[in-house]
Amino acid sequence: MTPLAISLGDPAGIGPEIAAKAWAERQVYGLHPFFVVGDARSVCAVWDGPIERISDPAESVAAFDRGLPLLNIEDGGTITPGVPDVEGARCSLDSLELASGLARSGAAGGLVTGPVSKAQLYAIGFTHPGQTEFVAERCGIAKENAVMLLAGPTLKVVPITTHLPLRAVSDLLSIDLIVTRSVATAKGLARNFGIASPRLAFAGFNPHAGENGALGREEIDILIPAIERLRELGIDAQGPLAADTMFHPRARAEYDVAMCLYHDQALIPLKTLHFDEGVNMTLGLPFVRTSPDHGTAFAIAGKDKAEPGAMIAAIRMAAEAMRHREVSSL
Amino acid sequence: MTPLAISLGDPAGIGPEIAAKAWAERQVYGLHPFFVVGDARSVCAVWDGPIERISDPAESVAAFDRGLPLLNIEDGGTITPGVPDVEGARCSLDSLELASGLARSGAAGGLVTGPVSKAQLYAIGFTHPGQTEFVAERCGIAKENAVMLLAGPTLKVVPITTHLPLRAVSDLLSIDLIVTRSVATAKGLARNFGIASPRLAFAGFNPHAGENGALGREEIDILIPAIERLRELGIDAQGPLAADTMFHPRARAEYDVAMCLYHDQALIPLKTLHFDEGVNMTLGLPFVRTSPDHGTAFAIAGKDKAEPGAMIAAIRMAAEAMRHREVSSL
Repeated sequence: MTPLAISLGDPAGIGPEIAAKAWAERQVYGLHPFFVVGDARSVCAVWDGPIERISDPAESVAAFDRGLPLLNIEDGGTITPGVPDVEGARCSLDSLELASGLARSGAAGGLVTGPVSKAQLYAIGFTHPGQTEFVAERCGIAKENAVMLLAGPTLKVVPITTHLPLRAVSDLLSIDLIVTRSVATAKGLARNFGIASPRLAFAGFNPHAGENGALGREEIDILIPAIERLRELGIDAQGPLAADTMFHPRARAEYDVAMCLYHDQALIPLKTLHFDEGVNMTLGLPFVRTSPDHGTAFAIAGKDKAEPGAMIAAIRMAAEAMRHREVSSL
Repeated sequence: MTPLAISLGDPAGIGPEIAAKAWAERQVYGLHPFFVVGDARSVCAVWDGPIERISDPAESVAAFDRGLPLLNIEDGGTITPGVPDVEGARCSLDSLELASGLARSGAAGGLVTGPVSKAQLYAIGFTHPGQTEFVAERCGIAKENAVMLLAGPTLKVVPITTHLPLRAVSDLLSIDLIVTRSVATAKGLARNFGIASPRLAFAGFNPHAGENGALGREEIDILIPAIERLRELGIDAQGPLAADTMFHPRARAEYDVAMCLYHDQALIPLKTLHFDEGVNMTLGLPFVRTSPDHGTAFAIAGKDKAEPGAMIAAIRMAAEAMRHREVSSL
């Protein structure tokens, strides 16, 4: 059995606490064995449970019953929960680099990433928009082929564009971008979730999906041609649908993933329904990568207030995806 | 007791059926007495229950126990459920005109409007974007002061802009527009819901509310100055908040209404949570006006499939608002 690697993220954030709490709940949730990568002090500062230092991921499966398996990455400074610093940012980046390298090499069966502080990472010269793009680059994957999927128990969404001003979205949308992301999504759902012919439902860009052009032309000029091309490729693509009426329970039953055109169109319904259990999965990488869909939460770090629900969901989704990948590669 | 007036909307839509079904459930839900305005044939075509023809709204309170009180407006053509025509559009407009006139005169205590077909109305020369603007104009209210509030059991939202292309929204937003709509909203919540000091939470326009300008400037240039001006006016205005994290249950507990900047930002969370029970209320009119937040649903008209839930919710919300207005005018 190959363990999962968890990078602890920023040592001053809630990453160490939620990873440790997830380990404590391993039997309740039947969690796949994992090891964490980060500074042991960041865990000890917020948690009293047993830690099993390891020097090789292979040790972690046997150690998993006795304590939280930990591969140490030293933070060059002091660690104070809730107080981020640049040494912590370097430690989070080193942890990510090592954990993703182990996943790439196959020593880890997949990667779960804890929350990092982008502000702190930018301060040490990190130039990627986020962990996803960093991992994609390390894998030699072009960033347009690494697709962010957000998943909760009753809804999966893909934001086709992400962190940019809303008024810039329309100019960035193109038939090619939508087709590329959608093909990667369809492949990813087959590979990681075992959905052989995933049903993709596309949200319209404008109110009421543009009402045949009366309320905007992005549907006619970009979205409908993209959907037609996807159908020619054999992908089950529906839409464009009015974005406001596609997320209630009966509507959600009609598709496997909602393809959304901008950040909030995807994230509003997901977080409205599944705020405490959202998982971010990167599709298109050579290995499984998930992450709890929340930030470092410095304000509550070290106060024993952090809930491990999203981390547990991220571990479970990664393990489930590993199983689907093994089955499909038999 | 003053009855509510319900305009039946398009005779070929589901308006007549849901109004009649609401009457049938009057005791279950303790509904305030109402009368409907429209062609009796549109009700008879889809419903077997008793109809009480009236010629004056005052008769409807006594008649309400015996049958569905109906003030007849003749449709000049034939009526086939699911098959709209221009005579039906004229009938729906005449019904709206009479019902809103009765509300304006005080003969009806408030107005609930059934769904109309905008496509059919445009075909007979109707030039308003919808019923809301028509009613506002008949009341001599400038359309920027008539605010659309969408409400479900756990969420109220106001879309500050509504039916226009998404890429046109940014240019339309202004401090004045936001302040005007927000003042009308605060007054409307006090008057119709008895919330003396309503808490308004403003959604950011861009992802993560713009991240201090890194992801767009609408927050800095327009929204924050508007919020400051509202606070100077004594209004409890919060934000701008990241739109994706303001609609989960704990976040919703912190405000009375979410002020949203475009159609789908407001309608996605509302319909995700409350698809079958959403009510549209117009704030800023001299009388109470609500409407079920769905369309004519021609596809299911006459098939006994229409659910009266949203119509019942619209009637209850109108009656509740009437009571609050009576209390506040004492």
